[in-house]
Amino acid sequence: MAGGVDGADALAPLTGVVLDALRAGAVRRGGPLPGGGPEGVEERFGALEVLPRHGVGAETALRELVELVAEGAADPADPACAAHLHCPPLAVAAAADLAASALNPSMDSWDQAPAATTVERAVTAELARLVYPGTSGPDALITSGGTESNLLGLLLAREEARATGGRTVRVVCGATAHHSVRRAAWLLGLPEPVAVECPGGRLDPEAVRGALAALPADAAALVVATAGTTDEGLIDPLPALADAAAAHRARLHVDAAYGGPLLFSERLAPRLAGVERADSVTYDLHKLGWQPVAAGVLAVADARYLAPLQLTADYLNADDDTEAGLPDLLGRSLRTSRRPDALKIAATLRALGRDGMAALVERCVATAEELAARIDAHPGLRRRPGGTGISTVLFRPTAADGLPPEQGDALVAEVRRRLLQEGRAVLGRARAEDGETDSDPGMTRLWLKATLLHPHARAADFDGLLDLAAEPAAPTPPAPRTTARTDGGTV
Amino acid sequence: MAGGVDGADALAPLTGVVLDALRAGAVRRGGPLPGGGPEGVEERFGALEVLPRHGVGAETALRELVELVAEGAADPADPACAAHLHCPPLAVAAAADLAASALNPSMDSWDQAPAATTVERAVTAELARLVYPGTSGPDALITSGGTESNLLGLLLAREEARATGGRTVRVVCGATAHHSVRRAAWLLGLPEPVAVECPGGRLDPEAVRGALAALPADAAALVVATAGTTDEGLIDPLPALADAAAAHRARLHVDAAYGGPLLFSERLAPRLAGVERADSVTYDLHKLGWQPVAAGVLAVADARYLAPLQLTADYLNADDDTEAGLPDLLGRSLRTSRRPDALKIAATLRALGRDGMAALVERCVATAEELAARIDAHPGLRRRPGGTGISTVLFRPTAADGLPPEQGDALVAEVRRRLLQEGRAVLGRARAEDGETDSDPGMTRLWLKATLLHPHARAADFDGLLDLAAEPAAPTPPAPRTTARTDGGTV
Repeated sequence: MAGGVDGADALAPLTGVVLDALRAGAVRRGGPLPGGGPEGVEERFGALEVLPRHGVGAETALRELVELVAEGAADPADPACAAHLHCPPLAVAAAADLAASALNPSMDSWDQAPAATTVERAVTAELARLVYPGTSGPDALITSGGTESNLLGLLLAREEARATGGRTVRVVCGATAHHSVRRAAWLLGLPEPVAVECPGGRLDPEAVRGALAALPADAAALVVATAGTTDEGLIDPLPALADAAAAHRARLHVDAAYGGPLLFSERLAPRLAGVERADSVTYDLHKLGWQPVAAGVLAVADARYLAPLQLTADYLNADDDTEAGLPDLLGRSLRTSRRPDALKIAATLRALGRDGMAALVERCVATAEELAARIDAHPGLRRRPGGTGISTVLFRPTAADGLPPEQGDALVAEVRRRLLQEGRAVLGRARAEDGETDSDPGMTRLWLKATLLHPHARAADFDGLLDLAAEPAAPTPPAPRTTARTDGGTV
Repeated sequence: MAGGVDGADALAPLTGVVLDALRAGAVRRGGPLPGGGPEGVEERFGALEVLPRHGVGAETALRELVELVAEGAADPADPACAAHLHCPPLAVAAAADLAASALNPSMDSWDQAPAATTVERAVTAELARLVYPGTSGPDALITSGGTESNLLGLLLAREEARATGGRTVRVVCGATAHHSVRRAAWLLGLPEPVAVECPGGRLDPEAVRGALAALPADAAALVVATAGTTDEGLIDPLPALADAAAAHRARLHVDAAYGGPLLFSERLAPRLAGVERADSVTYDLHKLGWQPVAAGVLAVADARYLAPLQLTADYLNADDDTEAGLPDLLGRSLRTSRRPDALKIAATLRALGRDGMAALVERCVATAEELAARIDAHPGLRRRPGGTGISTVLFRPTAADGLPPEQGDALVAEVRRRLLQEGRAVLGRARAEDGETDSDPGMTRLWLKATLLHPHARAADFDGLLDLAAEPAAPTPPAPRTTARTDGGTV
């Protein structure tokens, strides 16, 4: 068993096996991801039986499986693994998460998680204050990520609309909103969201006013803005959107899954000005925040807005237990059994402090800007015109620009897949407007995307990668891959 | 950073701090949970700042927080922590989970989780086969737990009803069904489920036939049965319910969150006969299965039933990437970013094998039966008449039987809270029929509940606890608590 007074002694040799296997797997991988594509990974797994008749024992099972998973990882601790909002976790967070696994507090009732309840309460209070500083009555929930937070944002609006005259809520969001907004509407049985065009990648407040005015008179409305789009890292004009929502008595939800942690930095927080006017705000600490998945947050301006989540189940929060002072946790989530993700968040925030979190966020943003400058200076690459979004940079080989649009896009997609297949880089892809003066301003192209979430990476770490991306037609050199090294850091 | 070639070296000292803090906290707790109730726990936390201006460093933060959480845990590795379906995790599972935290694969696209994708595929194939052996085409998803699995069960039925004539699905479940069934219907915008009475705690197939016949002619129907009720561990009569559903062309979902892992045991699997006739089946490996939360499963008889979850998001599974052979993971969950919970499950199943899993399940069931016999032999306690449900035993002090019903129930609730407050035991509570011949057969009483999920506990470990529960009026003896010891086991 992992818990109890003997738990640590049982765990110690096994965590030793895991750390050795992680080390061995990373060395064997020797890069940001395994080469050989899906087939190569399947081959290494071989005929390993997951559920044999007789077990192979804990140490053998851990050595085999952890080595395979480490060797076959797309490891965001390698700077060249930069496709997604997929961060390298801090060691302090991963270590704290071990305690969560060993003790297994379940956040559905106090008597399964006495101290973890206290930790979660303290953490959510800070996470609410981060978005709504200086106000009374905000609150925050820990979620499984932006998708669940957005679902909650829509659900709370749905329930409020129901409670005020039995109305249906209509969601108005940007065409660049995360897919989870549409998925949440589908899940909740709501009408399909009204998707407003986003010229330049940002939601246009005037277009939102128009969309709100066009809704049926008896509908309630929820405007969903984005602070950090997935494709470009762009932040919608929040103050003007808050004005538009207020003018139509619409609720405002901001999906700041990516951008929310800018609030740790006094220098960068102004980019999110207006977010405090939202009724609810999504943000993730498993993006900028360097937590292992999951570490999602939903912050609300007023704790009373969470009332529709209240639920009584006699075995977990009977009235007489609640009256006797046992905290009632069931209204803090849509899940029942729930891992104490607050513990790793608490350990990280306390270890680094607000200054430390701010420094890491600022570093990612600065590195992205330096990378943009290097791309601008590279003869074989063209960056998407305009500024960088948070820490996202879009670019493409100039060779793609010389081709007809469809072939150019196919080349971009091919470069990405080739780098994946060769185990050299995990770059993302995004379709976005170009903005070159000689092309149709509304025309979109496919771009390579680098999302910088590595707090110790330097722009120079990407130089080799940029050269590879710029020479899509060149034959693959057989040279051994070198692992990009960073300046480390022990948290 | 926790990942990369240097990750293990950064993690090693911090996991050492965590293991020391777990050990120190467990010793200081000296029992199944901290004494002093919620106030006592809050006091130990003191004025500790979660988000200080300047950080205290990783080692200090981990030592402080993990010690607090360990000292203040309701630790299911102590046999007297037996209220809920809240298991002590195996060390092998907790250790494997450390690798998940360190590498942070995210299960929303192959290029964030190459090898973890392979592991999940192998694990879900086995988990599907466990429910649907010898059939072609079953599948399984990893979920955050029974609540999400039940949500998926209802969602898939909703979508099928929509696809076949735009019908609404009506859910028919037992009054003893888990609260997540009603909550899922609410979330999905479905009509409130028809709750059928459960005399004796089990769903009556004739009553289900009646409820199905009474539905509007144009409604689609979903019968939700339970294999292991939360309160009593009872299993609904699955074959007769499958017949009833088939006769009305209704879909069948079985919530086997608790009972599903009986299928690992050839001796116990017959208790779940009929489950293989369900369209979808919920089960949890963070109950019987000894995984840290979360380790939920939804198995479906036919992989095609999962089609409504398909989703395309260009940044994660663009068509040309999928056509080029990159696995598409987005339709495998309602979440987007997703922790590789399959890894700890794989390590556990491979370490123990099917025999080993069966032995642990059988041990829990046998211990519950032995505990029932001890309660029957105890002069101060009365067990709820009838057999034990899976590994759940209901009982109450005979002193409560001597009181008027309401006062008797209040006494039972009070005993539970006193044991909690004193840090002596975490017992559950359940309202259930009595069945004593001299009382109204339909009358319900409040019972103490012991749910045995500790695979190394022995019935004798509970003797002191039974004495405490039997003497509700006695003054609290000030004797020091002793920690219950078990026969250990290193997995």
